[in-house]
Amino acid sequence: MDMKQLQDNLARLGAVDASSMVGDDFLLTWEKSDAELDATFLTADILRGLREANVSSRLFDSGLAVSLFRDNSTRTRFSFASACNLLGLEVQDLDEGKSQIAHGETVRETANMISFMADVIGIRDDLYIGRGNAYMREVSRAVAAGHHDGVLEQRPTLVNLQCDIDHPTQTMSDTLHLINHFGGAENLKGRKIAMTWAYSPSYGKPLSVPQGVIGLMTRFGADVVLAHPPGYEVMPEVEEVARSNASRSGGRFTRVESMAEAFADADVVYPKSWAPFAAMEKRTALFEEGDTNGLRALEGELLEQNARHTDWEADEELMSRTRDGAGLYLHCLPADISGVSCDKGEVADSVFDRYRVPLYKQASYKPYIIAAMILLAKFADPAATLAGLLDSGQKRVR
Amino acid sequence: MDMKQLQDNLARLGAVDASSMVGDDFLLTWEKSDAELDATFLTADILRGLREANVSSRLFDSGLAVSLFRDNSTRTRFSFASACNLLGLEVQDLDEGKSQIAHGETVRETANMISFMADVIGIRDDLYIGRGNAYMREVSRAVAAGHHDGVLEQRPTLVNLQCDIDHPTQTMSDTLHLINHFGGAENLKGRKIAMTWAYSPSYGKPLSVPQGVIGLMTRFGADVVLAHPPGYEVMPEVEEVARSNASRSGGRFTRVESMAEAFADADVVYPKSWAPFAAMEKRTALFEEGDTNGLRALEGELLEQNARHTDWEADEELMSRTRDGAGLYLHCLPADISGVSCDKGEVADSVFDRYRVPLYKQASYKPYIIAAMILLAKFADPAATLAGLLDSGQKRVR
Amino acid sequence: MDMKQLQDNLARLGAVDASSMVGDDFLLTWEKSDAELDATFLTADILRGLREANVSSRLFDSGLAVSLFRDNSTRTRFSFASACNLLGLEVQDLDEGKSQIAHGETVRETANMISFMADVIGIRDDLYIGRGNAYMREVSRAVAAGHHDGVLEQRPTLVNLQCDIDHPTQTMSDTLHLINHFGGAENLKGRKIAMTWAYSPSYGKPLSVPQGVIGLMTRFGADVVLAHPPGYEVMPEVEEVARSNASRSGGRFTRVESMAEAFADADVVYPKSWAPFAAMEKRTALFEEGDTNGLRALEGELLEQNARHTDWEADEELMSRTRDGAGLYLHCLPADISGVSCDKGEVADSVFDRYRVPLYKQASYKPYIIAAMILLAKFADPAATLAGLLDSGQKRVR
Repeated sequence: MDMKQLQDNLARLGAVDASSMVGDDFLLTWEKSDAELDATFLTADILRGLREANVSSRLFDSGLAVSLFRDNSTRTRFSFASACNLLGLEVQDLDEGKSQIAHGETVRETANMISFMADVIGIRDDLYIGRGNAYMREVSRAVAAGHHDGVLEQRPTLVNLQCDIDHPTQTMSDTLHLINHFGGAENLKGRKIAMTWAYSPSYGKPLSVPQGVIGLMTRFGADVVLAHPPGYEVMPEVEEVARSNASRSGGRFTRVESMAEAFADADVVYPKSWAPFAAMEKRTALFEEGDTNGLRALEGELLEQNARHTDWEADEELMSRTRDGAGLYLHCLPADISGVSCDKGEVADSVFDRYRVPLYKQASYKPYIIAAMILLAKFADPAATLAGLLDSGQKRVR
Repeated sequence: MDMKQLQDNLARLGAVDASSMVGDDFLLTWEKSDAELDATFLTADILRGLREANVSSRLFDSGLAVSLFRDNSTRTRFSFASACNLLGLEVQDLDEGKSQIAHGETVRETANMISFMADVIGIRDDLYIGRGNAYMREVSRAVAAGHHDGVLEQRPTLVNLQCDIDHPTQTMSDTLHLINHFGGAENLKGRKIAMTWAYSPSYGKPLSVPQGVIGLMTRFGADVVLAHPPGYEVMPEVEEVARSNASRSGGRFTRVESMAEAFADADVVYPKSWAPFAAMEKRTALFEEGDTNGLRALEGELLEQNARHTDWEADEELMSRTRDGAGLYLHCLPADISGVSCDKGEVADSVFDRYRVPLYKQASYKPYIIAAMILLAKFADPAATLAGLLDSGQKRVR
Repeated sequence: MDMKQLQDNLARLGAVDASSMVGDDFLLTWEKSDAELDATFLTADILRGLREANVSSRLFDSGLAVSLFRDNSTRTRFSFASACNLLGLEVQDLDEGKSQIAHGETVRETANMISFMADVIGIRDDLYIGRGNAYMREVSRAVAAGHHDGVLEQRPTLVNLQCDIDHPTQTMSDTLHLINHFGGAENLKGRKIAMTWAYSPSYGKPLSVPQGVIGLMTRFGADVVLAHPPGYEVMPEVEEVARSNASRSGGRFTRVESMAEAFADADVVYPKSWAPFAAMEKRTALFEEGDTNGLRALEGELLEQNARHTDWEADEELMSRTRDGAGLYLHCLPADISGVSCDKGEVADSVFDRYRVPLYKQASYKPYIIAAMILLAKFADPAATLAGLLDSGQKRVR
């Protein structure tokens, strides 16, 4: 990004009123207005531009960013750490153990105890349907009350680093990648975007990516197609969000049961495995009952069900059906690559390899998206704040 | 805190000579003079005021703060991380494993190896009577020698984050909470403060809080009552400290064997479970002999002994006996709340819930107390240092 | 170090052209030119001088330093953290699990995913012969490609924190200790330096220290002797490096099979246990075949082989044979001290204890050496950069 683009982006951000984001959380993209999403994309791009120009984005002289990962994570952990470091916040991990679903007063107390100097709390909690996003809201209420009661000097902002419903830091990064790839959000209009199920030999992959994608990408007038074998339905309320988004944005949202149909003339394909929503609901219930045998049986059933759809693989033949045989392949990574990470998986080796560089670029937006979410929750006039950084001339590397 | 109070506190701090704290550790409150404690409370309050006024307290441009937790800890870990971050120090955890009691040359070597750039070492070591505080002193001697010998460019300050004898960061926070609640340390004079045992279904809770409380709160002319069932004695040398403090401060220190008697007309109650000192001595011996059967047997005995005192619960009836039925309830958290975290515990649900906000405020002092301990060990004229921060106008959040 | 020495060192550094180090890694000392080593020693000493003069060396306003430890480490972990903190970088650990040897595309992907904002990657991977250094080069190629392809805004520098071949941060610290002890690198000329095997009751100690020492200390015109019992050969290619270095530097490299011969009139002795190279090759093969029984058998054989050489202990009698009975004793720590950390080990208690302070000083160079390696990979005119720090007057502690 050159200085002219950076200045243009600053001017465009100045024209957007995103002050409604101050003091708020980022939990689901569909709770955010178009202006708020626009401000997030612009802020992310400006932060990237500042870094490329070796301008420091250290807006916090001190302050903690609490991270709570209830599932293993390398990529999101590093993205969160990068974003916080870029802004001057220091990450402190809260390790509560993965298997436990905390409730009520325990959540309230812990949330306050870790937040005396926390400006941000990032949470990943995607293992149990009906639990992750609800937990984030419980934490949010607790810290809001703590701030109101004079316990906390600031109200930490929550950033959803993946829940049972949405994965906003991922899908916002994916979308910013598309915006920059196609030369502007307005150029997503009419594009065919295929979010499709793909085969994986592993079990219980979260629904947050496909749900997040259809809940977000339907807002830009695109023709979003959700494809999966029968039985792999996502949460009906998110499909409803997608339908309603598409209708407001002048786009389309359809569902098909064939990968070939979804790939036909697609500008963008996002083939990725996930577990059926209904099965994940059952799994949560079994977990809460402590029914180990039931959980084992369910795993067996689901793996067997998966195994009936090994042909759902993004191979060269399918890729050749995309628009001009050159559709953009997306993945949130890591992918199950046939013959590499598993015998048979989501994508053919040659396809994945051809798209390796764009895939890494897709991932590279995440630290900036997270930093933008934090910045917009703290600064009412982000364009002025960012212009101030540029004017101060403080270098990132001396 | 408004700017006038902040300026008043700076003036008061300027009148206290705490230069004796420079280069020293904070291991036991009763090793500190009244002036040193006063400086710690004032510095903590000023740091809080600065943060509320969005003034940066970054006194270190770089530097490490080593933390060593030999027992699990979320609250103290976050308080230490918050304090260090506030001052500009980065926490680096030393994970030595919990079960091991290091001795002699190993301690000396490790202490030096981790301290080349360490300004602070915070240690929690409360599991074994006779060991924790002694270990801290061993580390302190090692780094003092390392500094003297030219190995270490600075002598890191030790902060006791809880040992077998005292829990100074906790009790200093508790006391600052009381000072602010009652409008000044002078208003603690004559107040009845009841530190009482309470029933818990769990085993082996440390003695550091009750001991720390009677060793500190007897210094302000208060009427401090220690209450516990027969057999739950604390360390006799700490009782002696309390008696001697009370006599010097014009207060009182008494021991009773009834919760009701302790609560009667109390201004402050601190009901909390702990294990008998004698049993903890036995446990240390069994641990060092590697006597697993002995340890198991001891645990059984102690749980049985506890179970004879389930009536030691801070319930509404007991709270109504406090001064005007409105005594201030304290706890270091987490509490064993009857019907919430256990069937029957230290405190009734309704009592705990009524005091939730003051309890969280009590906890909120800890990061500032720890930061004050570090600051006073490093800066000979803390009032000038803190006034310099205020004058520099460097914002915490831009 | 006084200000005059600091200025002298800055002038000397200004006369060395080390711009070839910019954008490069530090993986093996013998890949570095004499000028590059010289610049590293000078930069380390200057950084130490700046810190002693309370001048901040914060060259990065933000930025991550990724650490990847595939073997336990306290000392190197703290040294790396100290170095990064000194320069303003925040350490983020990548925990991949210790037992796994990652290959190919997985390495490429992970390396990029963690590096979006990484200025440095420090890796310790010393467990398997033929693997550690190769892995570092794989990571280096991956991030170089990522930078070239526009995925990474900067190319992170790799620092070898110990591999199967070399341990450059250790041996550069050891050598800087010798340089300062003897009053200049030129005073190493003709000194007898004995790198000798010593008995340890433990199994499989890495070869990186002896190899690194003979590969580095032969460059200063010294008389380097490698001593070990028959069967404890190091990698032949590193012996070849040592021979060739000695011939170029006007020094000597010889191999003997007696500790007494090596110690005779030695200026410096470095007695330390290691495992035979050939056995470590066998161990890597067994590990890759998953041959647990084979691994257990090998361990038994090696411990038995070790046990035949318990007389290889640096005791008082051997020390008395060193030059004037006052040779300098080195160790990378921790040492196996007879009667302290084990019944019979590498060094007698009284010898170790007499050299404790110099040993700790030896270790104290490591944070500065690591910081120098990072700095030289980022700044083309390090003398100007460091002089800029001094001139700016920014204090480390306010």
